[in-house]
Amino acid sequence: MKVALDAMGGDHAPAVNIGGAKEALQLYPAIEKIFLVGDQAALEAECAKQGLSLSDPRVQIVHAPETIGMAEPGAKTVRRKKQSSINVAMDLVKAGEAHAFVSAGNTGAAVASATIKLRLIEGVDRAGIASGLPNEFGVCHLLDAGANPEAKPEHLLVYAIMGSAFAQYALGVKQPKVGLMSNGEEDEKGTTFTKETFALLKQFADSGKAPFEFVGNVEGHDLFETQLDVVLCDGFTGNVVLKSCEATAKAMFKWLKAELTASPIRMLGAKISKGAFMALKERASAESYGGSPLLGVNGVVIIAHGGSTAVAVRNAIRVGMETYEHKVNPHIQETLAKVALT
Amino acid sequence: MKVALDAMGGDHAPAVNIGGAKEALQLYPAIEKIFLVGDQAALEAECAKQGLSLSDPRVQIVHAPETIGMAEPGAKTVRRKKQSSINVAMDLVKAGEAHAFVSAGNTGAAVASATIKLRLIEGVDRAGIASGLPNEFGVCHLLDAGANPEAKPEHLLVYAIMGSAFAQYALGVKQPKVGLMSNGEEDEKGTTFTKETFALLKQFADSGKAPFEFVGNVEGHDLFETQLDVVLCDGFTGNVVLKSCEATAKAMFKWLKAELTASPIRMLGAKISKGAFMALKERASAESYGGSPLLGVNGVVIIAHGGSTAVAVRNAIRVGMETYEHKVNPHIQETLAKVALT
Repeated sequence: MKVALDAMGGDHAPAVNIGGAKEALQLYPAIEKIFLVGDQAALEAECAKQGLSLSDPRVQIVHAPETIGMAEPGAKTVRRKKQSSINVAMDLVKAGEAHAFVSAGNTGAAVASATIKLRLIEGVDRAGIASGLPNEFGVCHLLDAGANPEAKPEHLLVYAIMGSAFAQYALGVKQPKVGLMSNGEEDEKGTTFTKETFALLKQFADSGKAPFEFVGNVEGHDLFETQLDVVLCDGFTGNVVLKSCEATAKAMFKWLKAELTASPIRMLGAKISKGAFMALKERASAESYGGSPLLGVNGVVIIAHGGSTAVAVRNAIRVGMETYEHKVNPHIQETLAKVALT
Repeated sequence: MKVALDAMGGDHAPAVNIGGAKEALQLYPAIEKIFLVGDQAALEAECAKQGLSLSDPRVQIVHAPETIGMAEPGAKTVRRKKQSSINVAMDLVKAGEAHAFVSAGNTGAAVASATIKLRLIEGVDRAGIASGLPNEFGVCHLLDAGANPEAKPEHLLVYAIMGSAFAQYALGVKQPKVGLMSNGEEDEKGTTFTKETFALLKQFADSGKAPFEFVGNVEGHDLFETQLDVVLCDGFTGNVVLKSCEATAKAMFKWLKAELTASPIRMLGAKISKGAFMALKERASAESYGGSPLLGVNGVVIIAHGGSTAVAVRNAIRVGMETYEHKVNPHIQETLAKVALT
């Protein structure tokens, strides 16, 4: 399979993008080619620096003269900067030259470009970002993590179908469990929006057509302690929750480090048990998950964290590969056609 | 000052409530009396067990034959169980016999009881819960953390005034910094609700009447890394964020423990640097903050976590004491009268 990588996207581009591409090429033989999309001169220089040979037939720079900054308004800028790395990379997917788009760049821009160029899958009104959080049982995907801040109940019903297709086909979960994020676990908890969504999901689950188990309302702690594959919410809530969880983990690491270096004796202990902290970092870090699929567009689109490292970019490429190879989108199309919601 | 403690509220009542009262009496000489409100026989037995003498003039059991369970619908049950510990304790505040109400019980019930019995401060449409989160600079209060899930922009403007009065008078912050929780820091980010709220806050701040600095939109990471005193949001978002942060911290501790006990050598290191983990726990734990003031009612009402320990209950009593002694409510009344929003 072939990947179109936005090599200019993210806080640490193009270094981590080239580094991630290099790792992916080494680790994943299924990748036939990675298109490095961005400023030709900058990418040539970075490839030379990192020893990624451009004579390798699996690597190809595709020049894109423009870059969309992380703080630019996404949807507007995508329309203005037609030759941006995001748009040029998306065009490769649209043309069928690449099978997956991967970017650590401006999320709003990637969502807008994907929606404009690839179009939505029949039966989908709004695309949604499925962001993985590590839990006791594997990974729980928060959907939507920010593409659709003012979602409607019907959007979340489609997200439930798409998220469970991702869990089932990309991750191998037989009967995905889907919860609805609320401010309490009791059925009657929530806002007008979540209550309407709850009723819609329950009705669909009760109809027997749902390719998932609807477990009802869930709370923050269920993200980590409960066996759940998908937690549904509007994109505003999902974005705020995701960033709050990341921020908490980051603060905890920072405080742990401060405490462990507060005295020579603590430093000694920390040195002895160093492996534990590295393992915890591996487990808790967004880096290990690396990429969130944008579900609902006609094509594989993976959005990575703006602060991605090379490992995160590599993992985002892996998620793109898995999403493509396990035919997540064809399965979503098939399921949506079968349940015929609209 | 005198405290009315709902001695039957919370997951571990009445043990932690009696334990917390006992600690508070030992630590805070300013407390003249704690009313232990709940089932007389159960409380007598628990006091005997924990060695809290009922001949101490600073302790008085006030019998309440009913208890509201944690999972009962709060507002409804408050109306039905008139003799519940929450209602009886609130009546003591209403009658002026106690100066602060403290409960680790059903939040919805406490909010409803406070609103019905104490009434709202003039100029306040909805009460809000201010929950403290530890950050680099002290404590940042998330307001509202769950009392008002479907808040309106005008509610958040009043929360900004009340939250900054709490930060200024109870915590000694000279010019409180207030942010609005959104899905991005740029001014134009957010939902229809947050954008309207942003405009209202900005207009008020620009008028020169605001007793706080409005710093604009903030994100999850600002809760821990940015110098902020109050982060405003609707009660649904606040509740979900608070629980997600708590859940992340809890998961991190659990995983850290698992990693540190995974081998004898790691266990040895952990034993040597044990002090660091205890200090981290102290710093990150909700226990150390203990109680969230319900701002906007005519009286001091402190809501503690359902899972409160004795230390958390004691800290909730301390927050009640500080809120009362530093005249947070009179200051809120004064400010609201002065700015005359309505």
